[in-house]
Amino acid sequence: MTTNVRRRMGVEERRQQLIGVALELFSHRSPDEVSIDEIAAAAGISRPLVYHYFPGKQSLYEAALRRAADELAARFQEPHEGPLGERLQRVMERYFAFVEEHGPGFSALMRGGPAAGSSRTNAMIDEVRQAAYEQILDHLGITDPPARLTLVVRSWVSLAESTALLWLDGREIPRAELELQLVHDFAALMAVSAAYDPEMAAIVVAMLAGEPADGPFTELASRLGALAGHGIIPA
Amino acid sequence: MTTNVRRRMGVEERRQQLIGVALELFSHRSPDEVSIDEIAAAAGISRPLVYHYFPGKQSLYEAALRRAADELAARFQEPHEGPLGERLQRVMERYFAFVEEHGPGFSALMRGGPAAGSSRTNAMIDEVRQAAYEQILDHLGITDPPARLTLVVRSWVSLAESTALLWLDGREIPRAELELQLVHDFAALMAVSAAYDPEMAAIVVAMLAGEPADGPFTELASRLGALAGHGIIPA
Repeated sequence: MTTNVRRRMGVEERRQQLIGVALELFSHRSPDEVSIDEIAAAAGISRPLVYHYFPGKQSLYEAALRRAADELAARFQEPHEGPLGERLQRVMERYFAFVEEHGPGFSALMRGGPAAGSSRTNAMIDEVRQAAYEQILDHLGITDPPARLTLVVRSWVSLAESTALLWLDGREIPRAELELQLVHDFAALMAVSAAYDPEMAAIVVAMLAGEPADGPFTELASRLGALAGHGIIPA
Repeated sequence: MTTNVRRRMGVEERRQQLIGVALELFSHRSPDEVSIDEIAAAAGISRPLVYHYFPGKQSLYEAALRRAADELAARFQEPHEGPLGERLQRVMERYFAFVEEHGPGFSALMRGGPAAGSSRTNAMIDEVRQAAYEQILDHLGITDPPARLTLVVRSWVSLAESTALLWLDGREIPRAELELQLVHDFAALMAVSAAYDPEMAAIVVAMLAGEPADGPFTELASRLGALAGHGIIPA
């Protein structure tokens, strides 16, 4: 009905429209199951016209992934205001919203299906991980991280990824609980590293300095303290 | 010099020898860089004879990966004796020894290079993760895990993987420190989950019941307690 009144799009505008349509389809089903015919139909154009803009499904997939990667990296941006725990919690909310919006595509990509695994897709995944890592260091105010901090932050980023993937697989635990849990996991992994290394202990002290009594980091500490008080965790 | 006296091997024996030679080569360099010619030379046989046993490099790679996966899963086996923290620490020692022995091949596989990413290689990786998960539940004595426990154990398994990969990339932190850190991380992630969920709290109570005062779990708790006592971590 609307095809006759559709105005002519410019090349870049058409490319961007196709990327948007493809990202939507690649997000909601495993990318291997999405055909060029379907993308063409969803965009309201012919199959040959899709090939006019993208040489094949892989290049369209990579363009869609590029947009998704940029969008996810943008969600890691958070104003440098207020307690760190709450900043991280807000980022986790946006992260899980992204994971929820792109569920099947995110799973297929991160689990390394046939559509994934090219050096370009792997480079984009690493870029997003790097963006997360840099944002955290930036919020901690650290420009020259010791190796132990790099390890804790990078391994926590991977923990966030695997937690999101496990959540997608059945969604048995409420999303909000896992968002908070990952904030707590960050504090816990930092604390473990601090327990044995004075340099890490100093970083944790600085991290907790601005935490309010009702912030997520303090709340965890008091809850763990309560468990210890009841003899549940050895004090 | 020795080729003339080399005795004739049976088919299965020759296959196993080739797998061993290939695993050695695939472990010490990125598998993409290892050629069939090299494998043939290392095995002391001709290139066509390699193809007689394996149709191509991918099938030989998968056979080598099969052996490595079985070997790694075997290292997760630990007698059900003594405190849990020490059992996990022994497994971590064997895990890092494996990672060290197979460093470049392990990195290439887990980072999803072109040699990896087939559905068969991914299935083998998942099988090893599953073996680790089942061993941990088995040692915890839990046959019907709640969703929160499944999530903590599986996400810790992924944390162990990423920690090992980060360690390989520069080896800036001593291996033994990371083995202990992962034992502590396990306790910390369990404790975070326990802090908000009574079912998880009961599991953590049971887990810590048999821990001696000088075990790794108790040691962490007392070190964290000391940090809290000095006002470093809010109590």
